[in-house]
Amino acid sequence: MVDIATRVHNHNWRIDPIVRSLIDTDFYKLLMCQSIFRNKPDTSVTFSLINRTTAVRLADLIDEGELREQLDHVRSLSLSRGESTWLRGNTFYGKRQMFRPDFMEWFEGLRLPAYHLEKRDGQFELTFEGRWPEVMLWEIPALTVLMELRSRAVLKGMGKFELQVLYARAMTRLWEKIERLRRIDGLKIADFGTRRRHGFLWQDWCVQAMMEGLGDAFIGTSNCKIAMKRDIEAIGTNAHELPMVYAALADSDAELADAPYRVLADWHEEHDGNLRVILPDTYGTEGFLKRAPDWLSKWTGIRIDSGDPAQGAEIAIRWWKERGEDPSKKLVIFSDGLDVEMIEELHAQFAGRVKVSFGWGTMLTNDFRGLAGDRLAPFSLVCKAVSANGRPTVKLSDNPNKAMGPKAEVERYKRVFGVGEQQAQEVVV
Amino acid sequence: MVDIATRVHNHNWRIDPIVRSLIDTDFYKLLMCQSIFRNKPDTSVTFSLINRTTAVRLADLIDEGELREQLDHVRSLSLSRGESTWLRGNTFYGKRQMFRPDFMEWFEGLRLPAYHLEKRDGQFELTFEGRWPEVMLWEIPALTVLMELRSRAVLKGMGKFELQVLYARAMTRLWEKIERLRRIDGLKIADFGTRRRHGFLWQDWCVQAMMEGLGDAFIGTSNCKIAMKRDIEAIGTNAHELPMVYAALADSDAELADAPYRVLADWHEEHDGNLRVILPDTYGTEGFLKRAPDWLSKWTGIRIDSGDPAQGAEIAIRWWKERGEDPSKKLVIFSDGLDVEMIEELHAQFAGRVKVSFGWGTMLTNDFRGLAGDRLAPFSLVCKAVSANGRPTVKLSDNPNKAMGPKAEVERYKRVFGVGEQQAQEVVV
Repeated sequence: MVDIATRVHNHNWRIDPIVRSLIDTDFYKLLMCQSIFRNKPDTSVTFSLINRTTAVRLADLIDEGELREQLDHVRSLSLSRGESTWLRGNTFYGKRQMFRPDFMEWFEGLRLPAYHLEKRDGQFELTFEGRWPEVMLWEIPALTVLMELRSRAVLKGMGKFELQVLYARAMTRLWEKIERLRRIDGLKIADFGTRRRHGFLWQDWCVQAMMEGLGDAFIGTSNCKIAMKRDIEAIGTNAHELPMVYAALADSDAELADAPYRVLADWHEEHDGNLRVILPDTYGTEGFLKRAPDWLSKWTGIRIDSGDPAQGAEIAIRWWKERGEDPSKKLVIFSDGLDVEMIEELHAQFAGRVKVSFGWGTMLTNDFRGLAGDRLAPFSLVCKAVSANGRPTVKLSDNPNKAMGPKAEVERYKRVFGVGEQQAQEVVV
Repeated sequence: MVDIATRVHNHNWRIDPIVRSLIDTDFYKLLMCQSIFRNKPDTSVTFSLINRTTAVRLADLIDEGELREQLDHVRSLSLSRGESTWLRGNTFYGKRQMFRPDFMEWFEGLRLPAYHLEKRDGQFELTFEGRWPEVMLWEIPALTVLMELRSRAVLKGMGKFELQVLYARAMTRLWEKIERLRRIDGLKIADFGTRRRHGFLWQDWCVQAMMEGLGDAFIGTSNCKIAMKRDIEAIGTNAHELPMVYAALADSDAELADAPYRVLADWHEEHDGNLRVILPDTYGTEGFLKRAPDWLSKWTGIRIDSGDPAQGAEIAIRWWKERGEDPSKKLVIFSDGLDVEMIEELHAQFAGRVKVSFGWGTMLTNDFRGLAGDRLAPFSLVCKAVSANGRPTVKLSDNPNKAMGPKAEVERYKRVFGVGEQQAQEVVV
């Protein structure tokens, strides 16, 4: 039976919104937002969209008017009552009231701040300026809007059955990955694919397929909206933006050298257990761990997000041993550019030696390589804090191809953090 | 939005009917039915289900009660007003009023006759007895009910996403076939896959995919319900049951030898143009053509339904030349066990020399090989006239593996029709 009301409603759609909720975002953004709201609420930051895959000329593919409509729609969103109830009442990482009443009150009143959009050389220059806790919430919606508008642009004009077969192929591909993952004994894996997903509905499909196909091995999703909708765990801890902004705010080299630890000291006060996960690579993993205070070695685990992942994990294991910790009790979360083969290899290499976990991103929610020609292949789009209180931010990471910031500042950071030769790795997604 | 009425209705389903219409059948059944209704209305026949793939133990897979429910449901069907209007008013093969008023009046009042069902050795013995024009209409519903109950039995207990991926794989496979067929210049192809389809909805999907993917190269479907629903051509002419029953009714060897031509003489009176298509293989193609009257060589074309198809077409071409006909004006319809590779080869070999056309059956509507293990692979199920007025029927065909009938009668037919050595070919579907 045709639902007449739905059809008539559809006739009158102004747009088909890509982001329909303020919690269609990564869980760690909300955790970090709360931390920033408490510790650095008045910091002024600029976030900027950066397309590392310049061959994908977004401004040629996507109509500027449509992009503005979608971004304007995001600005019209506010937290719904049900979403607020879920954030206030749900148990996250085994903890009740993860989000404090003062933060929730502020979040309930929030609308995202203005954006600045220009076209240049076939790309969009999209920036957001303002108070850190507000601006930082633009990161995920900005990325998902652009990713999905790109998908829509490519899919436009395809026939109904051609489209159905395109998705049939993508579904089959994911299912074959799931069938391989199912064979890994003791696997723990989460969806980290919000930011570079093909589209919202597709991510939601992928999550459900993982739920059915992997059962308990699938431990949750980084996406709050989908976690709420599908009644599964919301997963995530913290990201590079914290040390990057803390570092930019430093007034001296000594303060700069201490900034990454300051971030984690603030985090230590707020969180315990599985939320105490170190992200060590912002200014080089080796140096960071070497100079780390002892209390950090007591933390639950580490997240490996750049560089050679096996090497990163080995460095962490050595470090724990040096500090008298038992690595087999520690959590290692791999989250950089994963696909099934790498998951299989890393699991084989580290299961038992440490507690292994995977945050699977783009190749979970956007593996459309080779479909529609290659025009739907994922690409490397990021939205980063580029300055704080007027000073540029810097990221080095364990892969020089992921480095960011003005050249002189990059050199200064390398000196302060004692980063020597780094091995470059191709950044695909 | 959930359509509440639909959901509530679904709760109360007694069964989910497989056959929902008397015209969910092959077009040629209706053409033949009308011919029989006119020429042999009082012949008493028995049709019987024969599973040539004994390894598929249908009675172990399918619950007898469910089978009876489905067959009883078929007996409850009668022609709807819209279906009747379509049969009376539509143009078939360029002709208005293909179905005569007296036939339509009879058909409008028709319910299918009783069936007889028993289990034996893991198979169902399903037979239909009665007046030929009524009993013959059981063939397709009996086959589609059993095919789909087998699919349902295998699919039972699969997860939602597992199911979706199963269909995703089947869709992808068909689409890849369509993409190959699209490259054949001048292709003409129809869906002949009703009788051995995976299921009704799947056949309907396949037809729509062919419409979108092949455009004008897809000339229609043998399924009347789908032709009506999708507003495309209904395709088909006549089948082996006519010569088989006519032959069984023959009172002498001379009458027997003449029976296949009697069938076509009756057909000649009723139809012209593209409906004048010879099906020559019932008792051996070579002998049939050698002894054929001259008026038959004027017919529009020939359908090759057993034996080596290229050889069959070459025999027809030689025959037309001997009779002074121009083969390039003649239609050759290939309809036996086709898949893409064979279609490509036959088209390459015969395009230009004759007008080539394809009736694509099981590998269009039921290519689930290798999915769900191999438990959904198509198999060779037929429902045939086994006797007429108490005498057994016989089929020889150009492939001894497709022969039917009591041994002594087969020998007699071989003698009367001068059939010598035949080359056996594996019957897969």
